[in-house]
Amino acid sequence: MNGKVRVGINGYGVIGKRVADAVSLQDDMEISGVTAVNADYRVRIAAERGYPIFSVRPDRRQMMTEAHIPTAGSLEDLIKQSDIIVDCAPKGIGAENKPLYEKHRVKAIFQGAEKHELTGLSFVAQVNYDQAVNKDFVRVVSCNTTALCRVNNALNKRGWIKRSRAVLLRRGTDPWESHRDGMINTVIPETKVPSHQGPDACTVIPGLDITTMAGAGPYNLSHIHYSMVETNRPVSLAELRQALWEEPRISFVRSSDGLVALNSVIELMRDLGRPRNDMWEVAVWEDALAADERELYLVFQVHNEAITIPENIDAIRAMCGIETDSAASIAKTDKSLGVLK
Amino acid sequence: MNGKVRVGINGYGVIGKRVADAVSLQDDMEISGVTAVNADYRVRIAAERGYPIFSVRPDRRQMMTEAHIPTAGSLEDLIKQSDIIVDCAPKGIGAENKPLYEKHRVKAIFQGAEKHELTGLSFVAQVNYDQAVNKDFVRVVSCNTTALCRVNNALNKRGWIKRSRAVLLRRGTDPWESHRDGMINTVIPETKVPSHQGPDACTVIPGLDITTMAGAGPYNLSHIHYSMVETNRPVSLAELRQALWEEPRISFVRSSDGLVALNSVIELMRDLGRPRNDMWEVAVWEDALAADERELYLVFQVHNEAITIPENIDAIRAMCGIETDSAASIAKTDKSLGVLK
Amino acid sequence: MNGKVRVGINGYGVIGKRVADAVSLQDDMEISGVTAVNADYRVRIAAERGYPIFSVRPDRRQMMTEAHIPTAGSLEDLIKQSDIIVDCAPKGIGAENKPLYEKHRVKAIFQGAEKHELTGLSFVAQVNYDQAVNKDFVRVVSCNTTALCRVNNALNKRGWIKRSRAVLLRRGTDPWESHRDGMINTVIPETKVPSHQGPDACTVIPGLDITTMAGAGPYNLSHIHYSMVETNRPVSLAELRQALWEEPRISFVRSSDGLVALNSVIELMRDLGRPRNDMWEVAVWEDALAADERELYLVFQVHNEAITIPENIDAIRAMCGIETDSAASIAKTDKSLGVLK
Amino acid sequence: MNGKVRVGINGYGVIGKRVADAVSLQDDMEISGVTAVNADYRVRIAAERGYPIFSVRPDRRQMMTEAHIPTAGSLEDLIKQSDIIVDCAPKGIGAENKPLYEKHRVKAIFQGAEKHELTGLSFVAQVNYDQAVNKDFVRVVSCNTTALCRVNNALNKRGWIKRSRAVLLRRGTDPWESHRDGMINTVIPETKVPSHQGPDACTVIPGLDITTMAGAGPYNLSHIHYSMVETNRPVSLAELRQALWEEPRISFVRSSDGLVALNSVIELMRDLGRPRNDMWEVAVWEDALAADERELYLVFQVHNEAITIPENIDAIRAMCGIETDSAASIAKTDKSLGVLK
Ligand SMILES: NC(=O)c1ccc[n+]([C@@H]2O[C@H](COP(=O)([O-])OP(=O)(O)OC[C@H]3O[C@@H](n4cnc5c(N)ncnc54)[C@H](O)[C@@H]3O)[C@@H](O)[C@H]2O)c1
Ligand SMILES: NC(=O)c1ccc[n+]([C@@H]2O[C@H](COP(=O)([O-])OP(=O)(O)OC[C@H]3O[C@@H](n4cnc5c(N)ncnc54)[C@H](O)[C@@H]3O)[C@@H](O)[C@H]2O)c1
Ligand SMILES: NC(=O)c1ccc[n+]([C@@H]2O[C@H](COP(=O)([O-])OP(=O)(O)OC[C@H]3O[C@@H](n4cnc5c(N)ncnc54)[C@H](O)[C@@H]3O)[C@@H](O)[C@H]2O)c1
Ligand SMILES: NC(=O)c1ccc[n+]([C@@H]2O[C@H](COP(=O)([O-])OP(=O)(O)OC[C@H]3O[C@@H](n4cnc5c(N)ncnc54)[C@H](O)[C@@H]3O)[C@@H](O)[C@H]2O)c1
Repeated sequence: MNGKVRVGINGYGVIGKRVADAVSLQDDMEISGVTAVNADYRVRIAAERGYPIFSVRPDRRQMMTEAHIPTAGSLEDLIKQSDIIVDCAPKGIGAENKPLYEKHRVKAIFQGAEKHELTGLSFVAQVNYDQAVNKDFVRVVSCNTTALCRVNNALNKRGWIKRSRAVLLRRGTDPWESHRDGMINTVIPETKVPSHQGPDACTVIPGLDITTMAGAGPYNLSHIHYSMVETNRPVSLAELRQALWEEPRISFVRSSDGLVALNSVIELMRDLGRPRNDMWEVAVWEDALAADERELYLVFQVHNEAITIPENIDAIRAMCGIETDSAASIAKTDKSLGVLK
Repeated sequence: MNGKVRVGINGYGVIGKRVADAVSLQDDMEISGVTAVNADYRVRIAAERGYPIFSVRPDRRQMMTEAHIPTAGSLEDLIKQSDIIVDCAPKGIGAENKPLYEKHRVKAIFQGAEKHELTGLSFVAQVNYDQAVNKDFVRVVSCNTTALCRVNNALNKRGWIKRSRAVLLRRGTDPWESHRDGMINTVIPETKVPSHQGPDACTVIPGLDITTMAGAGPYNLSHIHYSMVETNRPVSLAELRQALWEEPRISFVRSSDGLVALNSVIELMRDLGRPRNDMWEVAVWEDALAADERELYLVFQVHNEAITIPENIDAIRAMCGIETDSAASIAKTDKSLGVLK
Repeated sequence: MNGKVRVGINGYGVIGKRVADAVSLQDDMEISGVTAVNADYRVRIAAERGYPIFSVRPDRRQMMTEAHIPTAGSLEDLIKQSDIIVDCAPKGIGAENKPLYEKHRVKAIFQGAEKHELTGLSFVAQVNYDQAVNKDFVRVVSCNTTALCRVNNALNKRGWIKRSRAVLLRRGTDPWESHRDGMINTVIPETKVPSHQGPDACTVIPGLDITTMAGAGPYNLSHIHYSMVETNRPVSLAELRQALWEEPRISFVRSSDGLVALNSVIELMRDLGRPRNDMWEVAVWEDALAADERELYLVFQVHNEAITIPENIDAIRAMCGIETDSAASIAKTDKSLGVLK
Repeated sequence: MNGKVRVGINGYGVIGKRVADAVSLQDDMEISGVTAVNADYRVRIAAERGYPIFSVRPDRRQMMTEAHIPTAGSLEDLIKQSDIIVDCAPKGIGAENKPLYEKHRVKAIFQGAEKHELTGLSFVAQVNYDQAVNKDFVRVVSCNTTALCRVNNALNKRGWIKRSRAVLLRRGTDPWESHRDGMINTVIPETKVPSHQGPDACTVIPGLDITTMAGAGPYNLSHIHYSMVETNRPVSLAELRQALWEEPRISFVRSSDGLVALNSVIELMRDLGRPRNDMWEVAVWEDALAADERELYLVFQVHNEAITIPENIDAIRAMCGIETDSAASIAKTDKSLGVLK
């Protein structure tokens, strides 16, 4: 061992593969392995990147070997070779896995589809990094909740928020599975009103008065949020801009620069050379910001595939006690990835 | 003349063709003609339906004759044979046409893209029918504003509204022009924040405290609105449901009936045998209604192509003084079309 | 009994509901009932139209009664009250049901997802009506195969076809289920090459030398076919046009009339007042027809939801021996529906 | 000067920005500058990458300076500092620019929207590199034609092709402009039949007997081609696979690896870390290849934004006489970019 934290990724999908690549960029952690349940193109890339591959289902190891995917063992083998597991398996599987992690006394991070109660700590780095320091189990909240927390934190820490409202239009499905799991020419309103993201944000920012409504549409590039924040006192546009400017992992985009829609912002990510055109920042439309005597108005884009990746890296650092200062960890993570302000 | 009001339609597009068909269903009005600017399939259908066709551009009459579209004269000819013109031409052309209507002393209705100031009276039948009685010029407001007015009126006339907020996700373009005027896999936020629909609703319901934000997505079936209405006192779900139930031209749809998204509600219109699968009602998701101590929450679908059609019929009736009682006109219009409660 | 053929519909979905409505328009047949497996909005419309509703799953009858959907019995009850069943259940269920139909000695029509072998007779009215006369079991072929047969029949009966090739781009899913079963921003190629539609067309037109390739895209309005037909001798554009013109259930559309894409042709159906904007005809782009020394080229739109409906009506008439002349049945069906040439 | 060929890019859009980045990766050429006509996000990235920016429209230089985009001069200035211009301006502008290039005796490459006659040489590296050596003006053909040429060349050089047919389903528009230039829920057939791509392929492979039909759909990731190639003798699947395998810039994808649609192949590009998820190769579905006694069948994906980029690099090398051996240039280009076999 070279002193680096050994990170195992259980569940190599949209989130898992990105966490793996982000861990690889850090100088204080390394990939001990990733798990796979089949032998498709995604797993082949993991193999090409040199990530040791562990088979969740022992009965499939032979199939994987025949498909020229070398396997290094089982999930338990991976756990034994790891200091921390980032569980990126589909909804509910994290909860099933937790007893296994406890048994092997390995730390574990769960993702947003798991319940807050699973860990008792729901994490967004710039809000509550401190609470995660040396913890064994932490839940990195969902893409939508992460975005809501970053934006509301900028206003809440200044004591401005009287009541926060948001309408979230989610992407229909993720690009990799858009051939089988999408929708055509429609919008699906969420009938659970208010939607769960509001209360979920309160697991990170206790006491925040926030209500959300949600739906999903026929696109896969990102979510988009419309936010109306009632304030305790008139807050000027300049103050709002400054607050957002000072907040980590929030960036401005401007229609006047040609960044007029979800696709143009993602094209910017492509032009920036971002891996997988990922945008880790919340992109707030600067020229759509508004403020009046009572309220602030914001529209922002949330690249759901990517936004929680820096959070996972910070959570590893906090939980493993490598770094106790949140700002230092955030800065280190952001530098490694290329997060912009 | 048979005592029926003679209605001319200037601009036979999405709105114009529907107004023409709706007028044809009334026993107290008749189509004096429609105008056309080319000889495409839409105009051919007008000819097949027996609507006299008037050529806006005299230089194109010969082309139309050659295309076997008989023309009955010019726009001025149509005006002379009409008691009222429903101007459904593209944005701005109504304003240009008004002097012509004044010159010929013909009444005229304009549509939502024209400015309120053009007529001084912005119309939604169930809100301000009375004001339109015997007026010469009236503006039927846009699809979005019509929906906002119907829903807010139900609450406002009960004195419940403290402050109303809505996020409007507009369809990308209309079905007939979706091959050339659409978008792919993106959402376009409106950068004018708050958006114009809030103030526009106030031209119909003066003093309403309403703020809206908007955007458009890659679908063409309908708009969808998310509405959060702060109330002056706790209003129960039962009260909300009752208020909406009693309001004309608002219908409930339920996810539990399989009506879970824009496409399934439009499929219902198809199954109901509606012409062009039109939905004249605002469709409110009954099982997504919510109420708490402070606020009411609603999600509704606005079939932009159709929602203002009954309003145009009522406006004709009011302006021509055929019927001075709003409830009577609304009931008559709704029966002729098949509007459901 | 009034001498009309009593038609039961088993499976009230995309096809079943249209067959039911089309049967209702005929003077020589009537609906004995339709089956349902749940109580959603589609079934409610069946009830409103007065179709007796039979419950496929007896355990759900109480649930349906509670949902205010009156049920008239079981599938077996419906069979007993019918002269013929049109089985429009999902793929494979028709084959399961056949023994039941045989047991009760009721005639039955199956749809395109069932295998040719199930009945030994695959039906397209204008090709092989005669063979269906007085038959007990017939399969109406799929939307794509129906279109291929109509178009190829026009050329084949003139002895022109040396070899026919087509590429079929299918719609992603049907409108009513586009919220859950679609795709976003992608095309799925069919990897079974050649695709099954070519051989399927040969079950209707034996000996036709035809090869097809297929795929599906992110739209739900219709399929689109690109067809290249090698001819035995040079066939002129005028001959091709004439052959298509004389063939039933094929109509021309022209880009020069503004009918430039799938959406504009469907808008024409809306303007024509078609129920559910259905197009029963194959729409061939007249201004995209081409012919050279060796080959004919055609592009056509296939409204998959509707194209097989007239075939089902004709099949009923043939099988029940009401009419033995194919041209007479086709003309009667087409008149009742409003099929255009 | 360091002996590297100085390459100016006129028109920094979809193609121009990629050619610039690809040139930057070569050791035998360098960017002398790129032109811009506005100051949007794309130009900002050019500035950040250190590409000298030249203003096509002198009247906009001040605007650009005010927008903090430093400009290095006019188009003529760029020409003077370049050995070769890659003209990537919109359709028709290349033809307008040619006299300017001639006047300044600078070599120039034009893109696919320009006519063959503009240069007399239409280029696809693996087909006719030799002809471009030391030429002054060359046209790199369009994305679709490039793909057709690569695939047909593999078969044609073995003397297999009797007659080649293809149906091309183009993407609706490019990602960066999908908010304004797309389509929704439709397919647009091309009414010019046969389509221009067949004859265009013959400008590269003279005498090829090829016919194409085309259309465009509501997606922006890639084109997809369905190809049916009649052969002079029965060609086996193994022979076909081998021929494609040996051809540069064609790669196999397999549905059995999860690569089942346009989106999954592009996801592979993302996972491979490709810049802008570009795919320079034609991706042929290996498990959809088919062969019978008379014909070969292929389905392939053409990433229109990227496929012509290596061609531009090779064209520069040939025209500037840096390398006269086509295989050597292709190998060098492919290695620099990371093109896979
Ligand atoms: N996709 C997003 O936009 C997004 C954003 C933020 C958070 N999340 C959260 O991340 C988690 C994972 O979501 P995702 O989108 O990456 O899902 P995904 O489906 O892309 O990936 C899940 C991966 O887990 C694998 N898997 C399946 N069963 C497994 C098992 N029993 N053990 C281990 N691995 C298994 C799958 O093969 C797949 O590769 C969820 O909690 C989700 O809510 C997702
Ligand atoms: N489309 C909607 O969803 C919708 C909903 C509510 C209100 N409106 C309003 O209705 C009005 C018309 O919109 P639309 O969607 O029907 O537009 P449209 O483009 O569908 O129809 C306009 C018609 O006017 C014709 N036209 C063009 N120039 C003309 C001229 N100089 N004189 C007469 N006719 C001319 C066009 O050929 C076309 O047929 C606008 O004010 C719009 O805001 C539209
Ligand atoms: N959808 C099309 O475009 C199309 C076109 C031509 C032919 N077809 C064929 O028509 C047939 C039906 O397809 P569809 O698109 O109408 O399907 P659908 O899913 O729309 O309808 C099937 C209906 O059958 C009901 N059902 C489910 N299980 C049943 C059971 N056990 N018994 C009776 N009913 C049951 C479902 O509730 C549903 O209402 C298939 O063979 C299909 O290939 C479909
Ligand atoms: N987009 C594709 O998929 C694709 C693929 C292969 C070939 N091509 C060909 O490449 C060429 C460029 O297409 P594109 O897609 O990159 O277009 P684009 O619109 O993306 O880029 C064109 C660029 O030229 C700039 N421009 C406009 N006017 C100009 C002028 N007068 N002088 C210089 N620059 C000007 C524009 O600002 C824009 O940045 C065309 O010939 C096209 O057919 C495009």
